[in-house]
Amino acid sequence: MAVSERQLEPLPLTQVRITGGFWKGRLDTNRTKTIPHIYRMLEQTGRLGALRLTYRPGDPEPPHIFWDSDIAKWLEAASCSLATHRHPALKKRLDATIALLAKAQQPDGYLNSHFTTVEPEKRWTNLRDGHELYCAGHLIEAGVAHFEATGERTLLDIVCRYADYIDSVFGPGKRTGYPGHEEIELALMRLYRASGRERYLRLAGYFIDERGREPHFFDAEAEARGEQPFRHRHGDRTLRYWQAHLPVRRQREAVGHAVRAMYLYAGLADLAAATGDEPLLAACRRLWQNVALRKLYVTGGVGAHHHGESFGRNHALPNESAYAETCAAIGLVFFAHRMLQIEADGVYADVMERALYNGVLSGVGLDGRTFFYVNPLASVGDHHRQRFFGCACCPPNLARLLASLGTYLYSAAADALYVHLYAASRATADVAGRTVTVTQETDYPWDGHVGLTLNLDRSAKFSLRLRVPGWCKEFTVKVNGNPAAARVRKGYATLRRAWNDGDTVTLTLAMPVERIVAHPAVAEDLGRVALVRGPVVYCLEQCDHQAPVRRVSLPDEARLTARFMPRVLGGCVVINGAGLAPSPSGWKEALYRRAEAVGPARTTKIRAIPYALWDNRKVGPMTVWMPRA
Amino acid sequence: MAVSERQLEPLPLTQVRITGGFWKGRLDTNRTKTIPHIYRMLEQTGRLGALRLTYRPGDPEPPHIFWDSDIAKWLEAASCSLATHRHPALKKRLDATIALLAKAQQPDGYLNSHFTTVEPEKRWTNLRDGHELYCAGHLIEAGVAHFEATGERTLLDIVCRYADYIDSVFGPGKRTGYPGHEEIELALMRLYRASGRERYLRLAGYFIDERGREPHFFDAEAEARGEQPFRHRHGDRTLRYWQAHLPVRRQREAVGHAVRAMYLYAGLADLAAATGDEPLLAACRRLWQNVALRKLYVTGGVGAHHHGESFGRNHALPNESAYAETCAAIGLVFFAHRMLQIEADGVYADVMERALYNGVLSGVGLDGRTFFYVNPLASVGDHHRQRFFGCACCPPNLARLLASLGTYLYSAAADALYVHLYAASRATADVAGRTVTVTQETDYPWDGHVGLTLNLDRSAKFSLRLRVPGWCKEFTVKVNGNPAAARVRKGYATLRRAWNDGDTVTLTLAMPVERIVAHPAVAEDLGRVALVRGPVVYCLEQCDHQAPVRRVSLPDEARLTARFMPRVLGGCVVINGAGLAPSPSGWKEALYRRAEAVGPARTTKIRAIPYALWDNRKVGPMTVWMPRA
Repeated sequence: MAVSERQLEPLPLTQVRITGGFWKGRLDTNRTKTIPHIYRMLEQTGRLGALRLTYRPGDPEPPHIFWDSDIAKWLEAASCSLATHRHPALKKRLDATIALLAKAQQPDGYLNSHFTTVEPEKRWTNLRDGHELYCAGHLIEAGVAHFEATGERTLLDIVCRYADYIDSVFGPGKRTGYPGHEEIELALMRLYRASGRERYLRLAGYFIDERGREPHFFDAEAEARGEQPFRHRHGDRTLRYWQAHLPVRRQREAVGHAVRAMYLYAGLADLAAATGDEPLLAACRRLWQNVALRKLYVTGGVGAHHHGESFGRNHALPNESAYAETCAAIGLVFFAHRMLQIEADGVYADVMERALYNGVLSGVGLDGRTFFYVNPLASVGDHHRQRFFGCACCPPNLARLLASLGTYLYSAAADALYVHLYAASRATADVAGRTVTVTQETDYPWDGHVGLTLNLDRSAKFSLRLRVPGWCKEFTVKVNGNPAAARVRKGYATLRRAWNDGDTVTLTLAMPVERIVAHPAVAEDLGRVALVRGPVVYCLEQCDHQAPVRRVSLPDEARLTARFMPRVLGGCVVINGAGLAPSPSGWKEALYRRAEAVGPARTTKIRAIPYALWDNRKVGPMTVWMPRA
Repeated sequence: MAVSERQLEPLPLTQVRITGGFWKGRLDTNRTKTIPHIYRMLEQTGRLGALRLTYRPGDPEPPHIFWDSDIAKWLEAASCSLATHRHPALKKRLDATIALLAKAQQPDGYLNSHFTTVEPEKRWTNLRDGHELYCAGHLIEAGVAHFEATGERTLLDIVCRYADYIDSVFGPGKRTGYPGHEEIELALMRLYRASGRERYLRLAGYFIDERGREPHFFDAEAEARGEQPFRHRHGDRTLRYWQAHLPVRRQREAVGHAVRAMYLYAGLADLAAATGDEPLLAACRRLWQNVALRKLYVTGGVGAHHHGESFGRNHALPNESAYAETCAAIGLVFFAHRMLQIEADGVYADVMERALYNGVLSGVGLDGRTFFYVNPLASVGDHHRQRFFGCACCPPNLARLLASLGTYLYSAAADALYVHLYAASRATADVAGRTVTVTQETDYPWDGHVGLTLNLDRSAKFSLRLRVPGWCKEFTVKVNGNPAAARVRKGYATLRRAWNDGDTVTLTLAMPVERIVAHPAVAEDLGRVALVRGPVVYCLEQCDHQAPVRRVSLPDEARLTARFMPRVLGGCVVINGAGLAPSPSGWKEALYRRAEAVGPARTTKIRAIPYALWDNRKVGPMTVWMPRA
């Protein structure tokens, strides 16, 4: 096993069941509200109908170039849901949709509702903008997810035929190309792992290494279309939008469209892990470092700029104008999860967890039927979740991630079981030649107590590795009620011993309210603090306050208390304290005044709520970063 | 005289000479460097050549739709320069350019290099985007300025013919329309005052009152071109870009493209003043209040957003991404100057002065040959002045404003002489039936002492009204060396007496360094201070500092001292003090940390320089608003 191959294997979804606590409620909503809602939207907007290929030139509302990807993500969400919950009606819908796809697939394997019906002559003529390989990637992911969740090959066979066809078109000695929106790379790697067929690995590698090579393919294909190459009109810098400005292995900075970047990096990690390609893994580490240390919101959001839905320069993290697309935070979870399996280092799990509880989860309302596409860290009150979007990438992406959440909790190594995320759950793993069942009881993230019970058919020696999050400064571990020494290495406390059936482990993570400051180069956050407790980032929402929340500052010495409120926002821990509101008097006739002429600030009660839960009550302003006073 | 007619008349340029001090140096640079530089640019870029009308379809580089306006603004700058300084070579260039315009004028009076040569069939078919009336307005202003500066009618006659032709085309019973870029309104008002011809007043009134009426003219003309009306594609809100969303008299909020808005409002003020139209004046006051109390940068910049070069919502005043176009600050000076003449209230002069010393003057480098189009209040170091722009509105706009600065200093009323701005100068005014010469000696704005000497042929009783700026909390006045009581009313200290030849007045304005705070609704400035001294806003520029300037905070109790440095930036007062720089240690591996884990800030020397003078030395970051510590 090369050093760069992955050290951990996530437990498959079918072996993990989330049984209660924080996530159970959100996943139930995802299953019973979000997945059916998205299906209705796919129907109502014509996306599902488009698969019937009945569109004829001149008809209104031609199938859009990325509609198929929305269907694919719904298929993946539905499949994952079926992995853990029986639901005959959902299975029927899923099978019917797969049947539509089977009929829509062309004799050569091609499968795309837009290019088959609207512009058949333009197949593969505009990889930069056409989203064909992107849609193909999502279909492939759906096929793998469906197979892994249900054991059925119906969709897998379809996507294998499609992937085989794509493989017959692109590659050395065939057509040159790579997608304008990355996604197929990681999808082919999933298909490779599910099928064992090396051609998918090779094709993923081809798309990855072709990217950014000179002469630039996007120029060549533009010229072939009779168009002026994009960068002749807009300059070389714009190739950064597609991460096509440099060969991927030479990229050091996360640039361009954030979702594209995240999907690409996840694909790179997959390829590096599968091939033991150390230089490629080094590129992954560099890109990770750049994101995690220079371009990451405290919420786990990435992609600061509305313009191009893109990364900004290092430390450019505006709050009110933050883009932080839900899909980008989801993509970051994909990237983090892959790096975690490769490196078995808690720094990846820390970011993954931060994104899951904040910048990802904010994407969906408590009703399960409204969604943020953009996740700002401050609002004047004009930003609200919507039922769907014309460009509807985020809702089904959320649905599939939440439906597959179980697989993010645990990993197995040769003789170790890793617990990455704390959530009431029951999982079965094969470790050290034994079948181990872990039952986890916890109210995390509202409470730092985690109880684990191990059940084994026979006792076995292996390491239980419990993540001690980077935010946690104190913890205790007990085994069968007795304090246990557990050194933390790379973010995991290791208990190595011969485990017996019924052994219990108790982990207690101290979870005080913390004031967080940003790197001083983050101009917007200078002199400000954010409140976090455990993995949860907090915000002030106007409906809890008298003073305008975006004006409230927080004295360094102000006492803050955390309290679980069962009736607030479905039950959550809120943080109470006293802030300062600037004196409102004297401002009627002035926009600027001498500092000494302004009256003293007044003490005002503050209540912070989890960021992910904002915009679920009365509409109004919100803020994460408060000035220090 | 109706209450709304203007109370003051500015002294004409020919009667005011700036003789020394702060402005003399900048105006000399404007005359000897900027005006010749812009002429060269007009030549090199083909703008002047375009007036020869030699462009034929198919030739490269067709004359652009707003090139004529750049020439017009240069003509105005050159004319104003000749009003105060003899310069035969410049006069020759001016006359030659006027001769080109005379030849370019069509038999019917039309005068536009683009629409005459490039798209003659499209004359008046796209007032929204074509800039025809905008260019016409600037030519008219140039004609009036040339006449007033030189007494010659060559250019005035040309623009009267053009205005007469426009008047024959537009108005009740003629073609409907109003410009997409306002400017002709205020120009026609200037032409009306210069010529006494009421038709120009009526035409200005027509353009103003037609604006924003339903059905919307921009829709009708789009349909006439066979295009979909703009707002059908982009929604009603977008009419705000052109201030065409509502009839002008019903507008209460400054919206849309900031330069357009400022030119419109200046035109409204002119029309209201000339006609005693109280409802229109009320609209001017409302719009002024909205700008001054909700949408004005501390530098006098307006138009916060890059998108549409437009006003943001109330209190949305981002610093690093501020647009604050130089032309918009200039337009604000126009609007303020007009309101000042109407209302004789120092609040207008305060804003005018703030803009002149900061957001306007920052537009031009000390070399007189480099220009900011955009004037942010913070920079990472990537914003620099340029020699010219494809859209080159700002450089000649600056040149004409600076060349005409003398006229902003004084106004005459029936029996009063107003001093609005303090600058070493000599002016002659007719007051109370006497000719009064005022000689002003001062190092303002570096020093608050102003000495005035009055010379009269015979003694006369009138009021001398000296502006006491809003920023000034203490002042003293002496007449002939003796302390004099002078009550301040509407921003002016009034000395009413019989004045004799040789009388002297000394005004001393206390000018301490002040910390300014912004209205707490300005989210970006919350918890921050800006330094000002007198009318001058200060900034920190990286080249004066060791610590990264955008991280430096300023303790409320830190002592700040002002000192004139003759060798710094051509001689200016700098502010020295001690700030705090965040501890740089511990940030290598983190983007966010617990506040208590971060080491204490370190004291660091700071030196603030006048904002208008930044980017004249070594390139680097800059900031105006510092966090309070």
